[in-house]
Amino acid sequence: MKIAVAKEILADENRVAMTPDTIKKLKSDDVEIVIQSSAGKLSHYTDEEYEKAGAQIAGSEKELYDGAEVIFKVRPPEKKEIASYPKGCVLVSYLEVLRNPEISNELNKRNITSFAMDTIPRISRAQSMDALSSQASAAGYKAVLLAAAFIRKFLPMLTTAAGTIPPAKVVVLGAGVAGLQAIATARRLGAKVEAYDIRPAAKEEVQSLGAKFIDVTLDEETEAEGGYAKDVSDKSKSVIQQTIHNHVAAADIVITTAQVPGKKAPILVTEKMVKAMQPGSVLVDMAVEQGGNVEGSKVGENVEINGVTIMGPVNLPARMAMDTSQMYARNIMSLFKLMNKEGKLDLNFEDAIIKGACITHDGQTIHEKTKELLNA
Amino acid sequence: MKIAVAKEILADENRVAMTPDTIKKLKSDDVEIVIQSSAGKLSHYTDEEYEKAGAQIAGSEKELYDGAEVIFKVRPPEKKEIASYPKGCVLVSYLEVLRNPEISNELNKRNITSFAMDTIPRISRAQSMDALSSQASAAGYKAVLLAAAFIRKFLPMLTTAAGTIPPAKVVVLGAGVAGLQAIATARRLGAKVEAYDIRPAAKEEVQSLGAKFIDVTLDEETEAEGGYAKDVSDKSKSVIQQTIHNHVAAADIVITTAQVPGKKAPILVTEKMVKAMQPGSVLVDMAVEQGGNVEGSKVGENVEINGVTIMGPVNLPARMAMDTSQMYARNIMSLFKLMNKEGKLDLNFEDAIIKGACITHDGQTIHEKTKELLNA
Repeated sequence: MKIAVAKEILADENRVAMTPDTIKKLKSDDVEIVIQSSAGKLSHYTDEEYEKAGAQIAGSEKELYDGAEVIFKVRPPEKKEIASYPKGCVLVSYLEVLRNPEISNELNKRNITSFAMDTIPRISRAQSMDALSSQASAAGYKAVLLAAAFIRKFLPMLTTAAGTIPPAKVVVLGAGVAGLQAIATARRLGAKVEAYDIRPAAKEEVQSLGAKFIDVTLDEETEAEGGYAKDVSDKSKSVIQQTIHNHVAAADIVITTAQVPGKKAPILVTEKMVKAMQPGSVLVDMAVEQGGNVEGSKVGENVEINGVTIMGPVNLPARMAMDTSQMYARNIMSLFKLMNKEGKLDLNFEDAIIKGACITHDGQTIHEKTKELLNA
Repeated sequence: MKIAVAKEILADENRVAMTPDTIKKLKSDDVEIVIQSSAGKLSHYTDEEYEKAGAQIAGSEKELYDGAEVIFKVRPPEKKEIASYPKGCVLVSYLEVLRNPEISNELNKRNITSFAMDTIPRISRAQSMDALSSQASAAGYKAVLLAAAFIRKFLPMLTTAAGTIPPAKVVVLGAGVAGLQAIATARRLGAKVEAYDIRPAAKEEVQSLGAKFIDVTLDEETEAEGGYAKDVSDKSKSVIQQTIHNHVAAADIVITTAQVPGKKAPILVTEKMVKAMQPGSVLVDMAVEQGGNVEGSKVGENVEINGVTIMGPVNLPARMAMDTSQMYARNIMSLFKLMNKEGKLDLNFEDAIIKGACITHDGQTIHEKTKELLNA
């Protein structure tokens, strides 16, 4: 079986779907892996390392895709990429069908069996395939480092001959995977951390990392399927905003991570809160690409309001590409093991993971949510 | 007594010599403090905060300097600044006489009594005035954060469902105040740290921070007066380079902090070592403004060589200006207490600190080292 690993074409997408380390593990007498030349360059994996790991380097698209049964990728492919894939092949990639269900029609045109790394069911057997978590974890880490590198003060407490510098106050809003990693990183750096999550279940996790949980009582259910946060009523949103106002106003750094799958991100930090913050404070809106948690944040920009900076970084996992590529490649490898029987594809649609991750097969869109969205 | 605090004029110098907090402590019935409008802006201290602390805000230079007996400043004043100071006043500032002894002539022209925050003797009674240490500590912290925010991988070890990400390897060259803070910060972030210093006495301090000391045996004395590193022979430099080569080559992040007061910084990392490093690695040359510890580093730039990035950041303390201004202001306040007797200047030249810090007085250059340099 031939697996093709393409170079990503999106600007600033530094990641690659396979690393030399995973190729070494995946390659066998039955499995041949071909990777596009310089596909790993921005993740700092060289063609030489890939070759040494047992991959072949393809100089052209033809070399890459000719006879390929399986394609590994990071970003949802663009039309022109899909057009170059061999008919009837298997594609494993992020597909972002909630945002773009139409991609399934493009894939069906070429009879491609597609598995979305971002719709793998959240069951314990699938944890090693959970790319959303591995990438979010890196994003949460990086968000804190960007803020800490930017802010003009220490995060840790400093005791010097000339007196004490108090620790910075960090508030993390949303304590999913990204938020928890942000809390852990801010704590490592010695900051005083408070965190809020709409799901009461998050309280214990927040506290176990040495942060204080901000309690908000709402009179509705807040947790959706798969442990994600639910989209709540406007009244609830307003109660949340009122409660967190003073915490945000007193913070040196605020990291927001609240996302609702397939929906616009909720506004957690209003302009009024930003204006109540001290000059020199920094916010990082990790949901900026989903509409933003902070009023006034802009995609890919630093916005300054009264001396307070709102950072709106794009694609944080790509800024950790050496490690996020490694984690993503392992996630893919773990999923692929379910499909590979000694070099022959063996797709068992009775398996909840195979079924849950599959978007298109046999020229049909089989993913329920995608079908719903296409028909809506 | 009137003290004037000027706004810094050097580009990107975000610091200010007094903070609202220190003004509150320094102000009394006998001591009046006037600060130039927006002097604290880039340190994120507002005119309103200064006023609330008891300072007067000066809108013009005339208002600021008229009748001022004492001036507090961060950067060595330029000619045009000195020209606007009241004749016969006292100036407390960095003066950098080793680099620019001629500044003393300019100060003498106006009969200014000047005290250099960067020549205060390193005795234990003067620790609370040690601006070189307080600022270097912030610089060492920031250097690690810049590298960590830039590098495309985690510093801490990460144990995930998809396997382990090993901790990053950080090498710190030069374990003075900046280096020790760099080590502590990298350790906080969970990195594996190795450090080297030419002074064998540094070994214990390095180890107490949880880092490994790189041992190099030289056949000459390496420690100069005041605990600073000595400028050693070319033979010794070559022995050092040979020993640290493999450590640097294996590092993900290298922070270099080696400076010799008044001399060009020694090259510790050669181009050959940079080329032996893995793509994606990052070096921060903290001595770049003194000529650099890393071959190929450039002032204020990121240079990429074979996928390895050499950062040459300028004036790192200014990027921590909220806290470094606070620490610097406390250092100044501590020195000023030796000069102030209930609102009257009382300069006791029998005091080792007053004598050691004084560059010019009564129209004469009295600082020995400065005189030597002027006569050379």
